[in-house]
Amino acid sequence: MEQTYLKNTPLQEALNIYLPVFGTQPTAAAEQIPVTQAAGRITAEALYARLNVPHYLSCAMDGIALLASDTFGASDLEPVALTCDQYTVVDTGDPLPDGCDAVVMVEEIIHRDDHIQLLAPATPWQHIRQIGEDFSAGDMLLPSYSPLTPGALGTLVAGGVLTVPVLRQPTVTLIPTGDEIVAPGSDLQPGQIAEFNSTLFGSLLKTWGALVETTAIIPDRLDALRQAVQAAAARSDLVLVLAGSSAGRDDYTTQAITSLGDVFCHGLAIRPGKPAILGRIGSVPVIGLPGYPVSGLVVLEEIVAPLLRQIFRLEIPVRPTVSAHLSRRLISSLKYQEYIRVRLSRVNGRYAAIPLERGAGLVSSFLKADGWLVVPQDCEGYESGDTVEIQLLRPLSAIAQTLSVIGSHDPLLDECMDLLAREPASTIELKSSHVGSFGGLLALRRGEAHLAGIHLLDEASGEYNVPAVAKNFQPGEVVLVEGVYRQQGLMVAAGNPARLSGLADLARLGIRYVNRQKGAGTRLLLDYQLRQLGLEPNQINGYTREELTHTAVAAQIKSGSADAGLGILAAARIFGLDFIPVAEERYDFLILASAFETPAVQRFLAILRSPAFRDRLDRLGGYRIDQIGRVLNHA
Amino acid sequence: MEQTYLKNTPLQEALNIYLPVFGTQPTAAAEQIPVTQAAGRITAEALYARLNVPHYLSCAMDGIALLASDTFGASDLEPVALTCDQYTVVDTGDPLPDGCDAVVMVEEIIHRDDHIQLLAPATPWQHIRQIGEDFSAGDMLLPSYSPLTPGALGTLVAGGVLTVPVLRQPTVTLIPTGDEIVAPGSDLQPGQIAEFNSTLFGSLLKTWGALVETTAIIPDRLDALRQAVQAAAARSDLVLVLAGSSAGRDDYTTQAITSLGDVFCHGLAIRPGKPAILGRIGSVPVIGLPGYPVSGLVVLEEIVAPLLRQIFRLEIPVRPTVSAHLSRRLISSLKYQEYIRVRLSRVNGRYAAIPLERGAGLVSSFLKADGWLVVPQDCEGYESGDTVEIQLLRPLSAIAQTLSVIGSHDPLLDECMDLLAREPASTIELKSSHVGSFGGLLALRRGEAHLAGIHLLDEASGEYNVPAVAKNFQPGEVVLVEGVYRQQGLMVAAGNPARLSGLADLARLGIRYVNRQKGAGTRLLLDYQLRQLGLEPNQINGYTREELTHTAVAAQIKSGSADAGLGILAAARIFGLDFIPVAEERYDFLILASAFETPAVQRFLAILRSPAFRDRLDRLGGYRIDQIGRVLNHA
Repeated sequence: MEQTYLKNTPLQEALNIYLPVFGTQPTAAAEQIPVTQAAGRITAEALYARLNVPHYLSCAMDGIALLASDTFGASDLEPVALTCDQYTVVDTGDPLPDGCDAVVMVEEIIHRDDHIQLLAPATPWQHIRQIGEDFSAGDMLLPSYSPLTPGALGTLVAGGVLTVPVLRQPTVTLIPTGDEIVAPGSDLQPGQIAEFNSTLFGSLLKTWGALVETTAIIPDRLDALRQAVQAAAARSDLVLVLAGSSAGRDDYTTQAITSLGDVFCHGLAIRPGKPAILGRIGSVPVIGLPGYPVSGLVVLEEIVAPLLRQIFRLEIPVRPTVSAHLSRRLISSLKYQEYIRVRLSRVNGRYAAIPLERGAGLVSSFLKADGWLVVPQDCEGYESGDTVEIQLLRPLSAIAQTLSVIGSHDPLLDECMDLLAREPASTIELKSSHVGSFGGLLALRRGEAHLAGIHLLDEASGEYNVPAVAKNFQPGEVVLVEGVYRQQGLMVAAGNPARLSGLADLARLGIRYVNRQKGAGTRLLLDYQLRQLGLEPNQINGYTREELTHTAVAAQIKSGSADAGLGILAAARIFGLDFIPVAEERYDFLILASAFETPAVQRFLAILRSPAFRDRLDRLGGYRIDQIGRVLNHA
Repeated sequence: MEQTYLKNTPLQEALNIYLPVFGTQPTAAAEQIPVTQAAGRITAEALYARLNVPHYLSCAMDGIALLASDTFGASDLEPVALTCDQYTVVDTGDPLPDGCDAVVMVEEIIHRDDHIQLLAPATPWQHIRQIGEDFSAGDMLLPSYSPLTPGALGTLVAGGVLTVPVLRQPTVTLIPTGDEIVAPGSDLQPGQIAEFNSTLFGSLLKTWGALVETTAIIPDRLDALRQAVQAAAARSDLVLVLAGSSAGRDDYTTQAITSLGDVFCHGLAIRPGKPAILGRIGSVPVIGLPGYPVSGLVVLEEIVAPLLRQIFRLEIPVRPTVSAHLSRRLISSLKYQEYIRVRLSRVNGRYAAIPLERGAGLVSSFLKADGWLVVPQDCEGYESGDTVEIQLLRPLSAIAQTLSVIGSHDPLLDECMDLLAREPASTIELKSSHVGSFGGLLALRRGEAHLAGIHLLDEASGEYNVPAVAKNFQPGEVVLVEGVYRQQGLMVAAGNPARLSGLADLARLGIRYVNRQKGAGTRLLLDYQLRQLGLEPNQINGYTREELTHTAVAAQIKSGSADAGLGILAAARIFGLDFIPVAEERYDFLILASAFETPAVQRFLAILRSPAFRDRLDRLGGYRIDQIGRVLNHA
């Protein structure tokens, strides 16, 4: 279904149209609440101190309080003697005794039998904390629309302000819609999608300070949606309609809103996030969010956040940025402002930004991404190596200490990530991306990663990894560290219903194979084995069907959409598949020489050698360890 | 009372002793909670996906699904024709129909009467989202000790993980102590202090993810404190004893802890924060925090935060830093690591760090400070102009847009701050410090501020501000803008009990005056007037007693600790004082020329000219406006 009604309104234009439709919450709508319950809330008006702090003249030192004029003329040669009726012993914080106008520090007092001596005169008002030294009654402590931080709350209590007028928190109603959307925990049928957007968007809105309610899932019927939107607008400050992803869906949302109020904009010149709907019912903003999680999130941040900042003055943080060099060429459309998720790796003292897959449906990208690269609408993209500004999704301090792993997939990397996280006082994280062994070599060469898992068979020598490294790197550029031996084999459904006995059977009519992507070591292994058997790729049904990980291949077989795939025993076990061994191979770790001595790499190597890691390998299954951690490519 | 038992243990040494006493919360202590309630919590173990996402083969485009082999050989010259039994119309997200292995986009289909044509062959598996493309069942989604962000929660729901094991939140008990400490809202007697530290520390601990309870205030008696600490340790994960500020207090805390457990360290080589006590009762850490709010906060951040990070893996953010040049010389003790609060001003494209008063009792410094400058123990300080790293307490984006005002005090600056905050979509803040008119001139010269309020009388000409600016700046360096005319006068207690009629009466015996600090325009006005009257400063009792603001002077008079002070009508009104007019003066705004065209300064000038600002002046009282906003020092 073509969506010809969708316009491409540039983001700033949309904001200029939409934001002025709404004002700021009137002060009259403020709540009066106890200061002890006001953490994180926003002041509705300026707050003035009711008390002086300090509220009395107090001694600022331990020592004695006296009348300064009694000490005038004192010197080393002519000490002044004071009897006990002329001074009072005081501690810091004590009220200044009546008739005194100075404090002398305990260190400056010379004790004699029945009196004390001072060798210097006191200046009137010395070592006395004046009334209002911190602030005075009537001083403005906070202006309107200030967030009530811990420091602000402490100051208000000290200043006698125990009840504060705060803006109401916005109530936001999320309406998930779509015939294919089902509640989480349902038994999913093909075509059905568990409703997770309300969890994602709702918890983000809560961190912004909103009160969030999610309705039942509304089916794709105009009357049902219209009724849900109307009810939500009657009881909320903001309504968000979460669209499904199938085409034509947002028709209903625009129709529902238009029949009850106004639509100001439908379709933004941003990607992802284009099919957004900006509307209003009564005085309540009603926004249609696209169904893909990444698309919805972009609209939430670019439209909903400024709206909540304006109406409710929420302190939604502006992301810090960092300059990074782009690790590869990036082409962007002139029709859209594009939001590209990137990983950041700190290699050789500078940050590399590695664009991730752009798919707007990839919810796991929120776990993988370190930041956003926003490519303006009038920009065609960037060249590899260009310096770009990245909006940070994780603190830079954490990114700087992250061990960046890009290469061949093996679940043991995830177990290493967990073991690193479980170290006492661990500050080193591990992040891995799966691009195959050759992709790993390239990532190291481009300075995108510190470490790559590789399993590259040299067909001539039958040796793993050492020849490939020698061919692709200069001596001293990288360190190759021995990893694990692992079983590769054919994964087939439990009970092996197709009765496969080895790779030769893949050419049999009706057998559906599922392959790994180009550059993956497992694909190279298949190609090698096929050549040994005298088979051609086009004899294998499914040779062009590609997955990125062992587990994804196993998932296809488990679901019945394929009959066989090459992979490791650990993946077969996770899915309860049968496993027909084909070969044992060595999976090693290739490390940038410049990163080898860093704490992150050294911790990683220590974990490889730990008993805890061996336990994890045993649990995964199919691994054998020989001289793990040994350096293989030294002179 | 000397505290000879206090040691100066360097911070890192104290952490090395104290942190290893405690471990990380054992996994067995984890709670299992619904993912929808887990926002912000920390995973107790690694979480693996239970479902493949997507869990079925789905169409990635709107178009038709078919068997790719039916299209082989298609070209512009030899289109392939397909009848309706050979394809199925599909939308994005639909399950791939049985018997199909490719999707062709709607744009590539040529519709004929009873069939369709394709001009190119389909590749097997094109435009199909494979099972597990996002992630597969068995893939690790999050390692142990990960914070459950909105993105993580959404991914878990999508992956079928609806219940999550999370670490327990720490329960922290705060015990305020001290005979002089009273509950907020009490009628304060001299020597009494309202208990605000528990609000300050408690709300900070809550933002870190702790559950906080505060006990009643415990008097300075060993048995009472011992009992309170014992009870708290029995029901909490962490006990914090909030000491009062008077000397000898922490004796009780060390004694109480030692009698029930161990004290590992008493006294840290940090300032403020020295009198901290690091102890343990059973397996529970018990920490004595110093009584001054700033001291307590430093110990909270330097000791308690790492402890909670270790035991409960709380994600307590590490502060970002910025490089700034120090605006003045700073001397630091070799005995302590010092924590200096600073304001930051972005002037001429770089950040100036302006050290604030170091007093550890100044709670309002939390509102004034933009960051911390940490001076290591082995550093004697820095020279003016040195580049220093500042730990940020406010987002840099907010600091960069802040109008920095340093100079003479007038409450109208606070009203401007509030009016700026109330502007629609305001992102400009105003921060002001009170250092007097001459201090303002210096601040502009040093690049610490954009704007200074000044009222400097030229005795020769009787003219305000213009001569002082001409004398202190080169042409073009600054812009002087006309401000307000305001009444200066003697503030005296209501009813004028001392029967003062003017400045000449200040020399009368028994009259206690309270003055402003050197460099304040109001002090210069006093000096000028005294000379006119033929009076000497030493004839005025209290000439050396200094306050920094009009309101602080008024507060002294209101409290009865002084009889008279020179100040503006607005300050007298706030405290209900009588006011004896002395002179009308002009309070102008001096602005760095390089900042004059910035949005912050231009918004400020717009506010000066606004009716809302006139309303505020009327409410304050004692102001007259003539040509406000007029530039006074142009050629």
